[in-house]
Formats: sequence, C-alpha cells, structure tokens
Amino acid sequence: MTDKVRLAPVGLGRWARVLARGAQRGDTVELYSCFSRDAAKREAFQREFGIERGAATYEELLADPMIEGVIITTPNDTHKDVIIQALEAGKAVYTDKPIAHTLEDANRIAAAVRDTGAVFAVGHSSRRLSGHREMKRWITDGRLGEVSLAEANFSNERGLELTPQTWRYYADKSPGGAFIQLGVHHADTLQYLLGPVKSVTAHARKLYTKSEVPDAIMAILEFESGALGYIGTGWASPGVYRMNLLGTKANLMYDLDFTHWDESHLADDWSTLESQYYGESERQSVDLPRTDMFREQLEEFGLAARGQATVEVGADEAVRALAVVRAAIESSKRNGEAVPLQEVIDNAQVSPAVS
Amino acid sequence: MTDKVRLAPVGLGRWARVLARGAQRGDTVELYSCFSRDAAKREAFQREFGIERGAATYEELLADPMIEGVIITTPNDTHKDVIIQALEAGKAVYTDKPIAHTLEDANRIAAAVRDTGAVFAVGHSSRRLSGHREMKRWITDGRLGEVSLAEANFSNERGLELTPQTWRYYADKSPGGAFIQLGVHHADTLQYLLGPVKSVTAHARKLYTKSEVPDAIMAILEFESGALGYIGTGWASPGVYRMNLLGTKANLMYDLDFTHWDESHLADDWSTLESQYYGESERQSVDLPRTDMFREQLEEFGLAARGQATVEVGADEAVRALAVVRAAIESSKRNGEAVPLQEVIDNAQVSPAVS
Repeated sequence: MTDKVRLAPVGLGRWARVLARGAQRGDTVELYSCFSRDAAKREAFQREFGIERGAATYEELLADPMIEGVIITTPNDTHKDVIIQALEAGKAVYTDKPIAHTLEDANRIAAAVRDTGAVFAVGHSSRRLSGHREMKRWITDGRLGEVSLAEANFSNERGLELTPQTWRYYADKSPGGAFIQLGVHHADTLQYLLGPVKSVTAHARKLYTKSEVPDAIMAILEFESGALGYIGTGWASPGVYRMNLLGTKANLMYDLDFTHWDESHLADDWSTLESQYYGESERQSVDLPRTDMFREQLEEFGLAARGQATVEVGADEAVRALAVVRAAIESSKRNGEAVPLQEVIDNAQVSPAVS
Repeated sequence: MTDKVRLAPVGLGRWARVLARGAQRGDTVELYSCFSRDAAKREAFQREFGIERGAATYEELLADPMIEGVIITTPNDTHKDVIIQALEAGKAVYTDKPIAHTLEDANRIAAAVRDTGAVFAVGHSSRRLSGHREMKRWITDGRLGEVSLAEANFSNERGLELTPQTWRYYADKSPGGAFIQLGVHHADTLQYLLGPVKSVTAHARKLYTKSEVPDAIMAILEFESGALGYIGTGWASPGVYRMNLLGTKANLMYDLDFTHWDESHLADDWSTLESQYYGESERQSVDLPRTDMFREQLEEFGLAARGQATVEVGADEAVRALAVVRAAIESSKRNGEAVPLQEVIDNAQVSPAVS
C-alpha cells in the first residue's frame, strides 16, 4: 500500500476520465476504488485506469473505511443527493462544477458541509489556468494598477447541435443554457481576480438553438470594489475563451483555445497572454509558467482530506459562482434591473428544520 | 475656378486640421474659405492649407454664395446654434460627431434639417474603417450567418489625465464621459452592422478619474433583430479599440490601434481582422481593402451638396447613436433597467411651436 491519498471516482463518464488522467499524472493521489450504477462502465473504467477495486453499490463504496474522498461527476441535477450522502458518510468530497443547478440545492450542500465539517471542493478549475494565475499576480503586485473594466467571453457552437436526446436540451435539466455550462467558469474566475460580485444585470435570449435553453447571454457584474465586469456567453458561434482586464497601469488580454483543455497539462500551450502598458499601443507576450489544473485541484483536494492543504474553491466560492448565473437569469426576467447576489442566495436558503 | 465642391471649415482647431488633410488628399472638394472667431488661428489655418480666403464673421461666411457647404468642428455644446444658423442660410452642413450632447439639441437640429431640406452629414466615421466595412459584407452575403453576440470596446487613458483646464472634465460640457467621447463610435457602427437598437441597459461609474464624468461604462444593447450587443468604454486604461461579432457560421474579430487614425488613409495598416469558422479553433487573417474614412466622408458630403451622392450618416443615424449614450446614462440611474431608445428620443422632442 502506498501513502497516496485514496480517492474514488463516482460517476464514470467522459469527465471522470478526464479527471482520472489528471490525477494519475501525479504521485499524490491514488484512484483506489470507483462506482457507477452501470457495472459494465465501471469494469471498463477499472481496466482503463488500473483501479483494483470497484463497488457494487454507492453505499458499499461509502462504507469502505480505506476511501478518504470521492470525486463526483454525476449529472448536475443529482449533485445534492450524491454529495450529501458522501458527506454524511464522513468522506471528503470533490464535485465537478457547478456545485448544483439550483441555489436551493447549493445552499443545502453548503449547510451539510458546515454540519459535517467535511473537506469539500468544487471543480471550478479555469481560475487555475496559467493566464488567470498570471493575471492574479499582476493584480496583487500592482503591475495592473486598479481594474475598472473586466471583460470575458466563453462561447461555442453547442446550442446549434443540441437534440432532445441530450439533457442539456432541457430547461429543467440545464437552466441557464450557455451560462450554466460555459459562462459560469468566468463567474468564478472574475470573483477570484476581482473579489465578490455585488449584483448582476443581464439579458438572456434563446435565438438560434432548437433547444429549450438560452443560447445568448450578456451580463454586467458590479463588484463590491466598484469595478465592472462583463460576461458574454453563447451557444451559437465558433468557440471563444477570452478575458481582458483593463487597469490604470496596464491591460492584460488572455485568449485560450479551450478545445485542448481536457489535457490540462498542455492547456497553456494553446493560450496567449498579452500585456499593454499605460501610454502605449504595443503589446508584449507574457510568459506563462506551466500549470495542470485538473491534476493540481485533485492533489490539493487529496492533501486537504489529510489536513495538509486548504481547498481553494469550496462551497462558498461555488455558491457565489452559481449565484451569478441565477442572478443573471433573474435580472433578464426583470428587464435588466440589477439583482443583488445576496438576494438570490438568501431567497434560496432552506430552514434549518429541513435537514 | 475648379469644379470642385466649395466647402468651408468652421472652427479651426486640431480636428479641423485632421479633416482638412483628409479633404485635400482627394480632388473632389476644395477648402474655399474658412472661419474662426480667432483671427490669428484663421490666418494660420489659411496658410497651412493654402486657403485663399477667410471670413471675418460667421455671418459673412454664410452669406457667401460661392460656399456650398460648411464643415463644423466647433465644441459639441455649440453645435445646435452653429449648425442651425448654417442650415437656415441654405448651406449643406457637415458636423463632427456627436451631433450634439443632448437629445434636445439633436432633435432640434434634425427638425431644422427636415424644415430646410438641407444636406446634412455627421462625422460618425469609424463605420467606414475597412474592418467594419468587411464585417458588413460578411453579414450581407451570409458568410457570418446570424449574429447573436456583438462585443465592442473603445477605451483609453484620458480620464486619468483630465484637468479642470479641459472642457471634457466637466459634467455639463461632456455628460457621459468616456461614452460620449469614445463609446459613441461603436453605438453608430453596431447599428450600421446589426440594425436599430431597441433598448439599452447600462452601468456607469466614476472610478479613478479626478474629473466630474464617468470613466467606466458597460452597456448591453438589445437589437430589434433579437441580437445582443455590448459596449465597454473607459477612460482609465491603456487604449483599446475592438469589435467581435459572433455568428452562427463564423466569428470576426477586429482590433485597431486608433492612435494612428488621424491619418485615415493609413489607419487600416494599424488594424487586423481575423475570421474563425464554425467547428474550428484556428483563425485566419482577413485582407482589408484600403479605406480613407475622413476623405471619403467629406467627398460624399461634397457630392451630396450637389445632389450627386447620398449622405450615409445623417440626422437620424446620429440621433440614434447619441440616444444609445443617453439611454445608457439613464439606465445606469435606474439600476440597469433597460431604457427604450425611442423613449429617450421622444422625451427630448421639442414642440413645433418652439422654433
């Protein structure tokens, strides 16, 4: 037996494989067991990743005292039940983003994390991309000056290809469309960089998709700091992943081809970060140290399960990211009137008596 | 005497010289006379541009039957009186943008244009840049598909450098700050590309400037077509001039160094337009035919004065561009609630009895 942290993937679809590859690029965590309700899928996953054991039921997995944490990538609308069951079984829990689709579920999960005192991490990984880490350094050390405008876009063609066979097609399965799938990444990263959002103004449209969900959303974020942020997110165009920060001393412009980011140890190769200084038009390329977001977040999670690290994105951060999406959808219904983040979070609180 | 159209600049500051150079790059118009209340400035202008005559008063200029049109670049808050006086004297009138600072003034000017039947042009020239002309072609011929998201930014450091000695410092002289000075360009160009804006949602902030005007504004434009547009405009960062169109068949991304656009026959050299097709990540550079926006708009104006051309940007277009700015400022006061363009235009109508 190694001394690696013993984790178990739960839900063994495409994303579980992406994360498993990330975990196995390092030496810190071990995929000790796994579970899927589909036994054939589980056996195939065990073979692919050399996992010695698998559980026949979720209860069996959670009862195994050797398992220190679970990596949950089940469908978003199952997150609450799957997560809370694991928390109550005493496991550390990592879940893919978003924490849940509704703030009610998110708040219930956050309450369960507080009640159990468990280690809990949410896979808002894009903030770990080298370009965003570099942006944070420029903010912290003052090279950027004060940011007034932060603009971000994350879009792709998905909405033009959705069919009724996909859960993303349906409003009850994927409320918020492009925003809950794509824009939510920027909702976390912008708050990582610029602090908490105070309120959100947005317009959401269903323009070209045959599905039930919005494929074009624009949101303006008002930060507690006074800065303004913009998130554009759509499902009706070729892919875009961009973020620009406009500061009193410099601008930084980040551009990423996200189609390669599954291999997160190579993702930075498909990105550029450019700087432009006050009084100048020319731009310089900024060197980006290599990162590996999926590996790093799982190793951090594993070490946190042993009390040796702190989770960077926990329930609070994940609730705030989801709340930006929910506030945007609400604002769009109110003709763009700004919706305070705390209002949507508080309106979705459940009473303590409902446990 | 040549057969060139005989025009006269009124107001002979920096911008008059930029336009004069544009006019003199061609053979269509002639700077026949000129006027400034500062006689020394007028004499220097005449010497610089080889203009044979100058008027001692504005009335003298407008009474000269040989002058076919005037090119007005006086301060924005003088536009209404200077323009209407010229219209009533039977001259064709070109004015630099914006048409005026207030919609009340703009509507009065538009009414005078209708009443006199005069030729009237407003210098919203950025739509004539080669990148934007190319964007229009891609929209018209279908290569872009249907645009869902259109994002634009025009920002520079000006707000960090304003002093009380500059008229742009003052809220009564330059209401709307960065938006009336910079963002208004995109307000015209986006409507040129995508049709009329129906309503505007915005937040305006005064963050880092010592002046009285907003230095950070974000606006979401709802188009009659259903598409969404974003204009970010600030005065607290290094310069940016960008526009991205996200379409169902392709994206187009335009990036311009505007610090060179005074020499508008060279402006395109300082720009890039890139395309990205559906299903692809790679971008290709799009060739841009050479344009000369200042020369072209003045030649168009001169020929229109003779009934040989149609003005592309007249009172209606200019009122709509200004109205986007005014609606944005109004929306910001209403906490982001969308303000219909027609509402701000109609609320600023003056009764016909006030002539």
